[in-house]
Amino acid sequence: MTSTVRVRAAELEGFSTRLLAAKGLSAEHASCVAAALAWADSRGVASHGVAFLPIYARMLDAGTIARAALPSIAIDTPSLVMIDADRAPGAVAMRFAIDTAITRAQSTGLCAVWVRDTTHTGAVGYYAALAAARGFGAIVMNAGPPLMAYHGARVPSATTGPIVIAVPGADADPIVLDMATSVVAFSRLRAARQGPAPIPAGWAIAADGEPTTDPARAAVPLPLGGPKGAGLSLMFELMTSTLLACPILMEHLPAGGAQIHRQNAMMLVWNIAALRPLDAYRADVAILRDTLKGLPRAAGVDEILLPGERGARVRGERQRDGIPIPGAMWNDLAALAAPLGVALPAPITRA
Amino acid sequence: MTSTVRVRAAELEGFSTRLLAAKGLSAEHASCVAAALAWADSRGVASHGVAFLPIYARMLDAGTIARAALPSIAIDTPSLVMIDADRAPGAVAMRFAIDTAITRAQSTGLCAVWVRDTTHTGAVGYYAALAAARGFGAIVMNAGPPLMAYHGARVPSATTGPIVIAVPGADADPIVLDMATSVVAFSRLRAARQGPAPIPAGWAIAADGEPTTDPARAAVPLPLGGPKGAGLSLMFELMTSTLLACPILMEHLPAGGAQIHRQNAMMLVWNIAALRPLDAYRADVAILRDTLKGLPRAAGVDEILLPGERGARVRGERQRDGIPIPGAMWNDLAALAAPLGVALPAPITRA
Repeated sequence: MTSTVRVRAAELEGFSTRLLAAKGLSAEHASCVAAALAWADSRGVASHGVAFLPIYARMLDAGTIARAALPSIAIDTPSLVMIDADRAPGAVAMRFAIDTAITRAQSTGLCAVWVRDTTHTGAVGYYAALAAARGFGAIVMNAGPPLMAYHGARVPSATTGPIVIAVPGADADPIVLDMATSVVAFSRLRAARQGPAPIPAGWAIAADGEPTTDPARAAVPLPLGGPKGAGLSLMFELMTSTLLACPILMEHLPAGGAQIHRQNAMMLVWNIAALRPLDAYRADVAILRDTLKGLPRAAGVDEILLPGERGARVRGERQRDGIPIPGAMWNDLAALAAPLGVALPAPITRA
Repeated sequence: MTSTVRVRAAELEGFSTRLLAAKGLSAEHASCVAAALAWADSRGVASHGVAFLPIYARMLDAGTIARAALPSIAIDTPSLVMIDADRAPGAVAMRFAIDTAITRAQSTGLCAVWVRDTTHTGAVGYYAALAAARGFGAIVMNAGPPLMAYHGARVPSATTGPIVIAVPGADADPIVLDMATSVVAFSRLRAARQGPAPIPAGWAIAADGEPTTDPARAAVPLPLGGPKGAGLSLMFELMTSTLLACPILMEHLPAGGAQIHRQNAMMLVWNIAALRPLDAYRADVAILRDTLKGLPRAAGVDEILLPGERGARVRGERQRDGIPIPGAMWNDLAALAAPLGVALPAPITRA
């Protein structure tokens, strides 16, 4: 059994770039997707990192992700933009969208960008964090295929699509809230399935629609707070897919419906400096952060954390120690890379 | 003991208008606040209806709500507006804000409006629903005083401030998601305190910071999904109060800090027609609604509901039967109205 391999983030990103280029993406697009994967792996979001490379490879082979797609601006006004992604890799469309939103908001103060007909967008927090690191606030919402049960339903019928809100922090690290609309992320449910421990009631239902605490039977995540999480999730579909005439639920839910993988997204970016000098904003964020951290804590709580703080700490550790790639995943990546003649990332040699 | 009295929504709105005018609001502002209260009562949100009249009266007497405030536009660009509310009644500032956002979005496609230094905004769903009823999508977020415990804290340290998302529906009723960031609304916790039944674990902590299921001891609501609800709530503060240099948590949380009641808000409005013909949008909403309602249902579920659907049904019933005012509340309203010489609303006489 291969043991865990540690690699530097830049090495991993380089590997992903080479691999995606070998699968037919342009150098620019390969590098764009690779950066999004590396961001997730660096922050401990293993479910959205290089673990997706074998899946993306299959989607490229099947034409589900369009290799040569060129996202273009279909609606172009100073503060409202719609990008037709043309089934481009999600990271390519989303990066184009957030860059467009930032550039517009720099001059107009605010810009909303809708993204139509893209594919798996990856860790959506990445795009919002890019904006926040540059002095902007950002909201990103995302609709995808139904993985979660809508409140009251016993079948997959709602996207777990996240809402992300990011603002500049007191220092270089932005504050990034990145939350799924399910009680637990689909990936966490998948991870629980590997073990014997029962899952808490309310996390998921089985494939037959019955509530379960048996990790082996848990198949469909349930929405956070019942109608709240389900409602948020449905609003993302109504705000993106329905509005963009690019429906997901309408196509997936009816028996025998076309089940093409696609995602749609909406993002809003505002320039902090259009409302308040950025330095003054950061200074108040620091005071608020310190105030929250100084609050009396609940039993068993060592530290009060701000959104995204845990991820930023993991990134610090991984800058020092590298990113751990579990043995099984390393083997998967090796099997993917070998026939393409792509060299694996250099592991960190321990002293 | 006075029994429940039923009154027509228009009667109740007229009463609120007269009462608020007698307390010194202009006719226009009194009518604006009264309409927001009537909207809540009509939809069964009793916590945000005329139950607030005695509280508003006290806040007006204390100068917490500024009687003669005139909200004004402090930052004025085509798609980004900031309104300084000058401590106006929340409904006055929020109505001005949503009307401004709708007017701008009619011509520019999209407008975000920030509202600085207003007071209790009432049922925020009202403002988003106004936009959606006119063919716009809307998001409204709101920061207020800390009533809820931030995740990991044992004291009130986060706003329960809602996120509201509304879009046009298949017919005249918009789809309105209106969710607090706490597991249960503060008002629901208050209602549970009247009875002996234990509350579920995870709803609230006691005043001493310990978890409790004793309704009499439940004092501080807990955030929905722990870090998720707390994170959303904190982001609302960072997106509004901190950005507008009008802090709430920074002033309320430190021991001995100034604890002035205020609220701040942010809303985004987009014109559906800027992205897709409204009729086509509505037609797809109808298909999606019917698809969701036709899904296999979980045990014990009679009907799958869309966000806001329950409130719309209550409004239908109350249009027919009037709004029930519990005896104790009726007495409170009578006690408030008598010294001002304001006539009570005419009750519905049952055949």
